[in-house]
Amino acid sequence: LKFELTVLGTSSALPTSKRNPTAHLLNVNERFFLIDCGEGTQLQLRKLKKPFNKISHIFLSHLHGDHIFGIFGLLSTYALLGRRNYLNIYAPKDFSTILDFFYKNFGAGVNFKIQHIPLNESSENKIFENKSMEVFSFPVRHRTPTWGFLFKEKDRELNMKKNLVKEYNIPVSQIHRIKKGADYFTENGDVIPNEQLTLPPYQSRSYAYITDTIWMESLTEMIKGVDLLYHEATFLEEDKKRARETCHSTARQAAIIAKKAQAGKLILGHFSARYKKIKAFEEEAKKEFYKTYIAEDGDIYEVPLVRAERK
Amino acid sequence: LKFELTVLGTSSALPTSKRNPTAHLLNVNERFFLIDCGEGTQLQLRKLKKPFNKISHIFLSHLHGDHIFGIFGLLSTYALLGRRNYLNIYAPKDFSTILDFFYKNFGAGVNFKIQHIPLNESSENKIFENKSMEVFSFPVRHRTPTWGFLFKEKDRELNMKKNLVKEYNIPVSQIHRIKKGADYFTENGDVIPNEQLTLPPYQSRSYAYITDTIWMESLTEMIKGVDLLYHEATFLEEDKKRARETCHSTARQAAIIAKKAQAGKLILGHFSARYKKIKAFEEEAKKEFYKTYIAEDGDIYEVPLVRAERK
Repeated sequence: LKFELTVLGTSSALPTSKRNPTAHLLNVNERFFLIDCGEGTQLQLRKLKKPFNKISHIFLSHLHGDHIFGIFGLLSTYALLGRRNYLNIYAPKDFSTILDFFYKNFGAGVNFKIQHIPLNESSENKIFENKSMEVFSFPVRHRTPTWGFLFKEKDRELNMKKNLVKEYNIPVSQIHRIKKGADYFTENGDVIPNEQLTLPPYQSRSYAYITDTIWMESLTEMIKGVDLLYHEATFLEEDKKRARETCHSTARQAAIIAKKAQAGKLILGHFSARYKKIKAFEEEAKKEFYKTYIAEDGDIYEVPLVRAERK
Repeated sequence: LKFELTVLGTSSALPTSKRNPTAHLLNVNERFFLIDCGEGTQLQLRKLKKPFNKISHIFLSHLHGDHIFGIFGLLSTYALLGRRNYLNIYAPKDFSTILDFFYKNFGAGVNFKIQHIPLNESSENKIFENKSMEVFSFPVRHRTPTWGFLFKEKDRELNMKKNLVKEYNIPVSQIHRIKKGADYFTENGDVIPNEQLTLPPYQSRSYAYITDTIWMESLTEMIKGVDLLYHEATFLEEDKKRARETCHSTARQAAIIAKKAQAGKLILGHFSARYKKIKAFEEEAKKEFYKTYIAEDGDIYEVPLVRAERK
């Protein structure tokens, strides 16, 4: 049961020889979620041997070119590969213009349904849900309407100890109740306490993606306790003024968000091409939040499956 | 005085883990010409350390996505870098729709002039000329209007032997005539024959780019004697029927063009992703034309400067 993030691109608006424009791929138990789609995303997916035909949900934070110019090539490739599966694209409402342009000029051969789900302004909006997880969008503040995303596994039930099911001959009808915390009453009236029958559940895991925003302390509430936080750090604190002017964040600001949100790990990316030594971002952020990592193209971050403590 | 081609991308419509979509960069004496601009072109230019700010002329063969999806990112990057120089884009007339879309949605910050020069149907159309070279376009046959391009240095004058200019004290006014082939008449009436005073000129060099076309034998006239010929080879001869149906060429067909045109070298590219062993393209083509090369992303082909034979 994987929960694994692959960072496909880590540059800001200007790519460099080592950093492609922004895109992330989240693998939750072999369901793949693409987040942003800068130029070259399909090429990165190929190079990193990702099963990109398994992507059915794409999340676009905003409509600046460095976050979306890869969408045309990806859609064209899906068409050429004969894709039939639907594709949901969660994106700002004006993405419809971009999609129209694509259909009109390059849409021949698209035999799959592309559904554009416009993001909305509510501060905690559930945009996707399946049996085991949920995705939320929340607005951030940039020069154009922009959103962050939170990917979160649902709480799991207690795990039955399988050998005891057999030993006590527990009927299937009871197992559902026990998994929710009930004790087991045997036919002759004995009570087997729940904690003897079950193991605590695996903790639900989560990933938050926050890019292209001015520093917003209020975001910490939304992402409280997140395991993996990606936060843009376009600038260093010495260029804090420039960060504010261009609606971006500094490494220190990102780290303060991580600290206040009690995140597990902080991943920094979207570095301005003006900085030659990216190490400085790590040093600056670590002063506020030690578990800070500098994202490089191709990096993989896995959140392991860990049992909760017995309450 | 360089004449150097760098192949940036060699895939056909479906990129692979090793082949980016099509783009070529021609360096003629430090003037840079970009030919086609598939997704990831600006990233390839960065990785290969090319001075892409020196590109002022872009040639787009046709408007299929795998040949143009990199244009948005490249133009955006030019804008971010504060480009002021004009940029000429030689492209089919419908490129205006694509450029309009770009301006409308991503054009903020574009402070340089982009001039779109529509390609036309005439069979040998000079679309660019400067002191030392010319570029011609010529229509080929694909599923959408498509053009090939010929880049050609102008004929050079004879080279004066500098030591003799001094020895005979030849006035500047005469040098121009001598470089064109005249003999030198000294003040006391002696005739110094031209071939004693000059070296034969360097040969003019040329490069032809032919992609996304059905086999057109008639093209050989246009590109007669070309030094470097890039010709698409999407298919092998065993899939000749498929090549014809999709308006593409086979390796053998490309080689026949090279042979008939008496090209110096043939470079093959645009291989369909269906073939695992690209070596087969080389083997097939070499039977017709020995100096055939398989293009890989990042390959460099230089045409050396060679003196002509004395006529």
